[in-house]
Amino acid sequence: MDSVHIPEVVRYRDGDVAQVSDDVAHEEPLEIRVRGRAVSVTMRTPGHDDELAAGFLLTEGLIRRAADVLRIEPCDRNDEGNVLNVVLAPDVHVDFDKLTRHVFASSSCGLCGKATIDAVRATFPPVESDLRLDAATLLSMPDAMRKQQSTFDLTGGLHAAALFDAGGKLLVLREDVGRHNAVDKVIGHALLNHLVPLDRHVLVVSGRSSFEIVQKALAARVPVIAAVSAPSSLAVEFARENKQTLVGFLRPGRMNVYSHPERIRF
Amino acid sequence: MDSVHIPEVVRYRDGDVAQVSDDVAHEEPLEIRVRGRAVSVTMRTPGHDDELAAGFLLTEGLIRRAADVLRIEPCDRNDEGNVLNVVLAPDVHVDFDKLTRHVFASSSCGLCGKATIDAVRATFPPVESDLRLDAATLLSMPDAMRKQQSTFDLTGGLHAAALFDAGGKLLVLREDVGRHNAVDKVIGHALLNHLVPLDRHVLVVSGRSSFEIVQKALAARVPVIAAVSAPSSLAVEFARENKQTLVGFLRPGRMNVYSHPERIRF
Repeated sequence: MDSVHIPEVVRYRDGDVAQVSDDVAHEEPLEIRVRGRAVSVTMRTPGHDDELAAGFLLTEGLIRRAADVLRIEPCDRNDEGNVLNVVLAPDVHVDFDKLTRHVFASSSCGLCGKATIDAVRATFPPVESDLRLDAATLLSMPDAMRKQQSTFDLTGGLHAAALFDAGGKLLVLREDVGRHNAVDKVIGHALLNHLVPLDRHVLVVSGRSSFEIVQKALAARVPVIAAVSAPSSLAVEFARENKQTLVGFLRPGRMNVYSHPERIRF
Repeated sequence: MDSVHIPEVVRYRDGDVAQVSDDVAHEEPLEIRVRGRAVSVTMRTPGHDDELAAGFLLTEGLIRRAADVLRIEPCDRNDEGNVLNVVLAPDVHVDFDKLTRHVFASSSCGLCGKATIDAVRATFPPVESDLRLDAATLLSMPDAMRKQQSTFDLTGGLHAAALFDAGGKLLVLREDVGRHNAVDKVIGHALLNHLVPLDRHVLVVSGRSSFEIVQKALAARVPVIAAVSAPSSLAVEFARENKQTLVGFLRPGRMNVYSHPERIRF
């Protein structure tokens, strides 16, 4: 399934509040193993995972042709299909040093994707924050961001992330070709200026929200994350579990609240 | 600078062809080092790199507070500022095993970001293809994609990538929360169906084009890459160097061609 049905979403439209359900893009970790070694853990939409593994190995330069792959199979039936083992032909020389991205530090790592998420859970406990915000304050944030997004207007090619205080004041905005980099810059700015933990703050991103964005916010103790576009299933699941308020489709006169709506005063 | 000025862009608008220049988002590699070890190479927009490094280390759980960082400095003046060394307080225990993402396979790796790109260059030579395409064929592709993007309409949360033959026939379309995954799935599908090398094909992506997308296309020998939105500076630079035709803003009646326009018949 490419999408996941999410119940108990609070929908706000021009003053009306309703509880609805919503379909969001499915996001889950996939671990790809070659010769017993994890070569990638990526957050992906389940489906066509054999193609994803084959394409990843080709574009990383580990294989060259279809005949290099003997078969692609689930590693463990108990793992919900989120670990794939790629069996290569014996004559394929795998240069693991070529894998400069998406790769575990430890070659003996036994983590599966689920364990990766469990490790995040163990590192960062749920957010504790009694922050309360007016819906109107949240709704004013995208406009405040756009006024500072000089480069976006020029190139159409950058993601933006911004940090606001509880009164709706924009503290810092950063733009980057990578959404995760824009978030890291905003959080790094806050850290270097002694504002962390950010448990009275709101993080707003210009695009979509994924697991990675919500996890980074959790690390900095941000209780409210809002995105101009849609969240993923794992972003919603993770935010619900960690007491974070996750807002999507934050646009003039409207928003959807996917988790912990009690922080927002409508 | 957040943007880079690109000369010699071919702009097509409703039948008119002109040579113009364009500003695109700046993309360059940044390597972050901690205690002599590369912990991340990320493609980012230069600027506020100290914040990026600090935020990355906090959100990956390697540091907890501002006092953990003594200073952040360029590693080498000759490296155009693309390698940062983060000096941590001596009492900070760094658990390198926590770094499950963005991490080199080899802990003794001396690569800098530029070397990473050089390694890609060495692995995949420029594309050789005499493919020629009508502009009208290219312009028809986004519409053909949207007709197959069932989930996108539902969630607004997925990236799409598709492979077309030279006649404009859609061969495969995949959607994913990760743009790079959608591209890997399309290329993996082609590989498993014995269509690689794809030197008579066109890759179209629903959003922006970055270095990573152009590099993956190069690995599969794709001569023409088209994106509905903007390219990054490194995508343009890399495509020009590798004889790939890179199209941006492919929308009804218009497109910008950033490299090797000789493949397109206007």
